Amino acid sequence: MPRPTLLQQLQSIEADRVVWVHEAHLDEGDLSRMREALQTELDVPLHEMAVEGGEALKTLAQTEQFWEHWSALGVTRRSLILTHGGGALSDAVGFAAATLKRGIAVAHVPTTILGMVDAAWGGKTGINWGHGKNQIGTFHHPEFVHVDATWLKTLSARELRAGLAEMAKHELLSPASLSIPLDEVANLDPSKHLDTWTDWLVASSNVKQTFVQADPGDFGARQALNLGHTVAHALESWSMARGSAWLHGEAVAVGLQFALFEMSNETLTVGSSAPLASMPAPPTGFQQWLKQAIPMPTPLPENGETLWPWMMQDKKNQGEAVMDLAIRPSSQGLWLARWEKHAFEATWTKFVRSM
Amino acid sequence: MPRPTLLQQLQSIEADRVVWVHEAHLDEGDLSRMREALQTELDVPLHEMAVEGGEALKTLAQTEQFWEHWSALGVTRRSLILTHGGGALSDAVGFAAATLKRGIAVAHVPTTILGMVDAAWGGKTGINWGHGKNQIGTFHHPEFVHVDATWLKTLSARELRAGLAEMAKHELLSPASLSIPLDEVANLDPSKHLDTWTDWLVASSNVKQTFVQADPGDFGARQALNLGHTVAHALESWSMARGSAWLHGEAVAVGLQFALFEMSNETLTVGSSAPLASMPAPPTGFQQWLKQAIPMPTPLPENGETLWPWMMQDKKNQGEAVMDLAIRPSSQGLWLARWEKHAFEATWTKFVRSM
Repeated sequence: MPRPTLLQQLQSIEADRVVWVHEAHLDEGDLSRMREALQTELDVPLHEMAVEGGEALKTLAQTEQFWEHWSALGVTRRSLILTHGGGALSDAVGFAAATLKRGIAVAHVPTTILGMVDAAWGGKTGINWGHGKNQIGTFHHPEFVHVDATWLKTLSARELRAGLAEMAKHELLSPASLSIPLDEVANLDPSKHLDTWTDWLVASSNVKQTFVQADPGDFGARQALNLGHTVAHALESWSMARGSAWLHGEAVAVGLQFALFEMSNETLTVGSSAPLASMPAPPTGFQQWLKQAIPMPTPLPENGETLWPWMMQDKKNQGEAVMDLAIRPSSQGLWLARWEKHAFEATWTKFVRSM
Repeated sequence: MPRPTLLQQLQSIEADRVVWVHEAHLDEGDLSRMREALQTELDVPLHEMAVEGGEALKTLAQTEQFWEHWSALGVTRRSLILTHGGGALSDAVGFAAATLKRGIAVAHVPTTILGMVDAAWGGKTGINWGHGKNQIGTFHHPEFVHVDATWLKTLSARELRAGLAEMAKHELLSPASLSIPLDEVANLDPSKHLDTWTDWLVASSNVKQTFVQADPGDFGARQALNLGHTVAHALESWSMARGSAWLHGEAVAVGLQFALFEMSNETLTVGSSAPLASMPAPPTGFQQWLKQAIPMPTPLPENGETLWPWMMQDKKNQGEAVMDLAIRPSSQGLWLARWEKHAFEATWTKFVRSM
């Protein structure tokens, strides 16, 4: 079955107007082609809004600017906000849309690997507030996500490599492990292999969708998608506070490596009586592959005590313990687990030395 | 079947902690009894937070204060926020809860008639922003609503009378019209007839729940509950801007009278080909009953042009027209309709002269 075009997807919504919020620095030629197609073919008012992407969008002040701008345009509860950019854009615009007039419909055209296989799906929106990431947000499921590798061509090599982390995570979690040839993915230029890359991205996004559909509110099986993310979020917050922010994927790559390291040492106490999700045994050498494919931008904090306060900020925490996930191949499962401060710090120190 | 106690409802949620946010000026004796029961019987941490109720709560700055306070208490995604006050409190606290950590569960113990039969049900949350009411909000359905006429005893006579408006609206919309004896309701002191009043409140809230369940996202049949509310919201915004804010119920009472007046004149152009909901013919004298039972606090604006700009702010508007509802007894139906500026202004002027 051919994939629907963006225009077909837009027309299926029957919105009374469309506000197209795109990142300013996408490829000018591709943007022009899209603008012309939408202006010619859409039979409802189209408003275009160019913004700077990135984490700076995810503030309450920026949320208010979206509310203000859209209200001035005459946006109603039957309008559609189309986001077109990275995960930070869909998070921030998604939150503003979720909260204006009790929810304006959104759809996403992601332009990063992270957005296409992960962030744009599943309805999570969020802005940063107080001392951590995504402290404020809602679930607001998109009408559709349009995946098209065309938009990857403006990504830097660093961004492309960071994007591999979520695809790698999906491969670890997928019942059909390694359905995507990760080595090829890491070496094939998306701008020269659009169709192949779009196929891979759609396949990877299907892993995400399977978990989301099983648990839309994120209270059960969907938490398996947090594999590697407790450490990743702590690394992101830590690096942001130091003024040299890591990319999300770079932090996830280390988070996954840490989970695989923990698996070999079993220092986490598994809490529940049944696994959260079944999970095939990770392929040999996966930790090494992650390390090489997705380089770290700065050295890791050597001391677990440095990272622990950031681990404590995690939204998933219950009471005083830090919730995380443990891979246990002996049971073919992924388990909910809790870190005690000392166990985490000891394991982290050993992990950094092993790198 | 006996109604569950508040404690039974709370325990059924299995929250990791409960934050009880109540209005400061409820009856001290009733508050003490509730505090003691919760402190003795709840087996999870209980935090008590007293706030001033009312429309002043519904600001973004106040929302941030809730986020800050609850984060400091260690609220997690498994916690419960229990609101205990009027509709403004459940709107404001509900919005703060809906947006912290992508949604903390809420439950409501309303203390006004409006809250018990209407505002606490159906998941609408909202704060005021920009030029109108509830411009910012989400749908966040409560885990439960505990209806108990005990809490009505601190209401002023004016507040009690304003509360009758939503009960009257539910009677108009109810298939079993006038299942509640409205004349008795208007004259029986709730503090002396707790059980009878609680029964009436539950019966009235069932009308609301029927519409909510048929249409949780408010895109179809649930819009019938907006009967009288387009004019009511305009009157509330108009009166607030003049510095002498009407109570919501007072505005709804006039909105319902205006809808009944319009019904006798048929100045609204009905847009759709089928009614939004079936609706029995209003009983004779209903408009007169509303006028006497729920007095207006200040005279109405005589000129429709004064009110029109506030009508234009309504969230339900599609494009340039103002969406409203028309009662048409000939078809036993409630119809979606659009006001043109001139038709509205002419009808409003006649309506005010008829009062």
